[in-house]
Amino acid sequence: MLFSQQIRFKRDGRALQPEAIRSFIREYASDMIPDYQMAAMLMAVFFKGLNPDELWAWTDAMLRSGDVMDFSDIPGAKVDKHSTGGVGDKISIPLAPLVAACGVNVPMISGRGLGHTGGTLDKLESIPGFKTRIGTNEFRAALAANGVAMLGQTENIVPADKRMYSLRDVTGTVESIPLIAASIMSKKLAEGISGLVLDVKVGSGAFMKGVDQARELAGTLVAVGQAGGVRTTAFLTDMDEPLGTMVGNALEIVESVQILRNEGPADTTALTVELGARMLLLGGVVVSHEEGRERILGAIASGAGLDKFRAMIAAQGGNPAVADDLSILPRAARQIGVKASRNGYVTAVDCEKVGIASLLVGGGRRRKEDEIDPAVGVRILARRGTFVSVGDDVAVIEYNSDASLDAASKLLSSAFSIGDEMVPAGPLVIDVIDGAAL
Amino acid sequence: MLFSQQIRFKRDGRALQPEAIRSFIREYASDMIPDYQMAAMLMAVFFKGLNPDELWAWTDAMLRSGDVMDFSDIPGAKVDKHSTGGVGDKISIPLAPLVAACGVNVPMISGRGLGHTGGTLDKLESIPGFKTRIGTNEFRAALAANGVAMLGQTENIVPADKRMYSLRDVTGTVESIPLIAASIMSKKLAEGISGLVLDVKVGSGAFMKGVDQARELAGTLVAVGQAGGVRTTAFLTDMDEPLGTMVGNALEIVESVQILRNEGPADTTALTVELGARMLLLGGVVVSHEEGRERILGAIASGAGLDKFRAMIAAQGGNPAVADDLSILPRAARQIGVKASRNGYVTAVDCEKVGIASLLVGGGRRRKEDEIDPAVGVRILARRGTFVSVGDDVAVIEYNSDASLDAASKLLSSAFSIGDEMVPAGPLVIDVIDGAAL
Repeated sequence: MLFSQQIRFKRDGRALQPEAIRSFIREYASDMIPDYQMAAMLMAVFFKGLNPDELWAWTDAMLRSGDVMDFSDIPGAKVDKHSTGGVGDKISIPLAPLVAACGVNVPMISGRGLGHTGGTLDKLESIPGFKTRIGTNEFRAALAANGVAMLGQTENIVPADKRMYSLRDVTGTVESIPLIAASIMSKKLAEGISGLVLDVKVGSGAFMKGVDQARELAGTLVAVGQAGGVRTTAFLTDMDEPLGTMVGNALEIVESVQILRNEGPADTTALTVELGARMLLLGGVVVSHEEGRERILGAIASGAGLDKFRAMIAAQGGNPAVADDLSILPRAARQIGVKASRNGYVTAVDCEKVGIASLLVGGGRRRKEDEIDPAVGVRILARRGTFVSVGDDVAVIEYNSDASLDAASKLLSSAFSIGDEMVPAGPLVIDVIDGAAL
Repeated sequence: MLFSQQIRFKRDGRALQPEAIRSFIREYASDMIPDYQMAAMLMAVFFKGLNPDELWAWTDAMLRSGDVMDFSDIPGAKVDKHSTGGVGDKISIPLAPLVAACGVNVPMISGRGLGHTGGTLDKLESIPGFKTRIGTNEFRAALAANGVAMLGQTENIVPADKRMYSLRDVTGTVESIPLIAASIMSKKLAEGISGLVLDVKVGSGAFMKGVDQARELAGTLVAVGQAGGVRTTAFLTDMDEPLGTMVGNALEIVESVQILRNEGPADTTALTVELGARMLLLGGVVVSHEEGRERILGAIASGAGLDKFRAMIAAQGGNPAVADDLSILPRAARQIGVKASRNGYVTAVDCEKVGIASLLVGGGRRRKEDEIDPAVGVRILARRGTFVSVGDDVAVIEYNSDASLDAASKLLSSAFSIGDEMVPAGPLVIDVIDGAAL
């Protein structure tokens, strides 16, 4: 059947045949369908959605457009975590070695930062020598040796998504839950995993501003994972203020090491424990979430997580001494405090402003091709609920060049709302959507 | 502002600024906006529509993408008619000379047939020597001399529509009332007219199957015409059976001459009179629709319309003797009757089947590049409401080659529904939407 007919069907709200979807995604991936037709289909999907059968066919066909990894020769479960992205979200970095230390393999494929959010790959590369562009064989060997390895997205994994995402970006079709789900899940399912924990961020600093929308995305992601034979659980977690205290690449490695040393901030530590506990449960090495928590806390206390972190760094060419000596990391030459403008309680910290302040001093990218400075960023001193007096430092900018420093300072200052009443923070974990319960 | 942002605005149901629309239509016409972005915009418009200000900006910008004719140096009103298309619709051919004979100029730009509907240009070209590809100066001279001239669409008139229509055709965005209206009205307003009568077809043989949808299209077309400073009236007319008795190119010239001789079928004659009366009213040469009817009927009775028809043919290189001797027209070598399958009343004649039967014997085009045979087609003998006995001819196929004759015969036979009860036909003119009353 003609693709234009499929576009009309979707436009008119009809369900497409899974085989038709598989066929046109395959043709799109092979350049047999032009972008202008796919753009119209994507806009029709924006308005009419995809039912579970259609979404699974779409995701599976995307997945099959490239290489699908198979780690069945490596003993044990393979479980990954994916976050929809936030400011200060460095959880993958302490999490992956902790889970591996507890006996579950973590083959993690991550992305780079763009705009106000950072990327795990950029953070890892601030560790001297650490390589994230490694071949499939090297990745497999590292995973087999240590139970954890971290790879950058390659050209061969879901190439259809690369093309489709670029098209969505310029055609107003990014904000579609089924298209977001197909994009995320096709890449995750290509990792050859048996379990997946999703961290769906909710709040002013997240892509999903409201709980209902985030819950819909989470439910959709979980349903696709389960359809793909992967045990999947989604956490809805708060992103109304930056996660932890550090924002920036080397700075987030510092906080990651602090978490592994049991010296981290309460929120990032708690989130690492929660997500790790569920990864162990999905990996089948514990029988309850509670037991999972104890195992992760144990791996922090014993130093087993930090050991895995060292081994992971060494396997990927980095200097493992970073786990013991943070001065090995690049450090910005200069610091400047951002002061409280009045007495009162910090009632809100705007994630996007913090993220952009870090970007302005060189910690992030405006465009994909921009270079970043791994050393720079923002340290937050006064989180939500803290009482501050006028003139106190609420945050510090770590910088090397003062090119955009004024703009960054002003923006960062405006990120802090201070009021007379303490506004209690909501729970970090807002909800859990368990695929086994669907 | 970025075009991708405009797409998101429209997608989210926001009204676009008229200046933004003018700017992106201009950029699209200059190849500065790619088809894949316009495809997404068109699908967003399919779902969210365009308000009157947006639609006028869109139409006017399309119109300005090419040449706009100016006949202000030719004295008198300039009024055209446009039909949304049907089977057997040859009304333009007797109508234009009749209106010109009554003192209103008719600068008519027409199209070719595609699929099951014919085109005025193809019909005119069945007159030996008649040229529809004439230059603007020749068109102007013919209009100045006779008050009527008929031209084919040129590359220079609304080039943006040519590109956009091709895109709509393959992206499932044809069936959008504002986009249909912008396409039709941009081309009509480029004719430099002061008045326009629209014939919006309704019924099983029309693009608009239901009255409500047709009324919405008619109202939209009229509003755009009025916004463009053109006095516009739309007629909603029946297309539940083919119009008149002849379907095919030379055959429709035969019926046109019959109408001009006052020997035509009742329905095509009545429709010619109704549309012509309104063109005279919009042209300001009569003060009422009723007076307009009398003038058109007078031009038929006096032969003034037939005289204009001869003059028009002569001015465009054709043999004017066709008005007096129909044997000058190409005639098919062979005829075959299609018989009634039972006794009873003809209750329906399927337009699309009749149109495709004519196409199958060579009277129409499957694809734009196909050649047509001007001589062939279908003559309908038993219209809706006629009592027929089994074995009576209900229609005749005029053909030269029997290549697809069997298929055409079977299809044409199945086009006739025969029942025991006479089903009364509805009115030919279902409604009139008068721009002056909006």
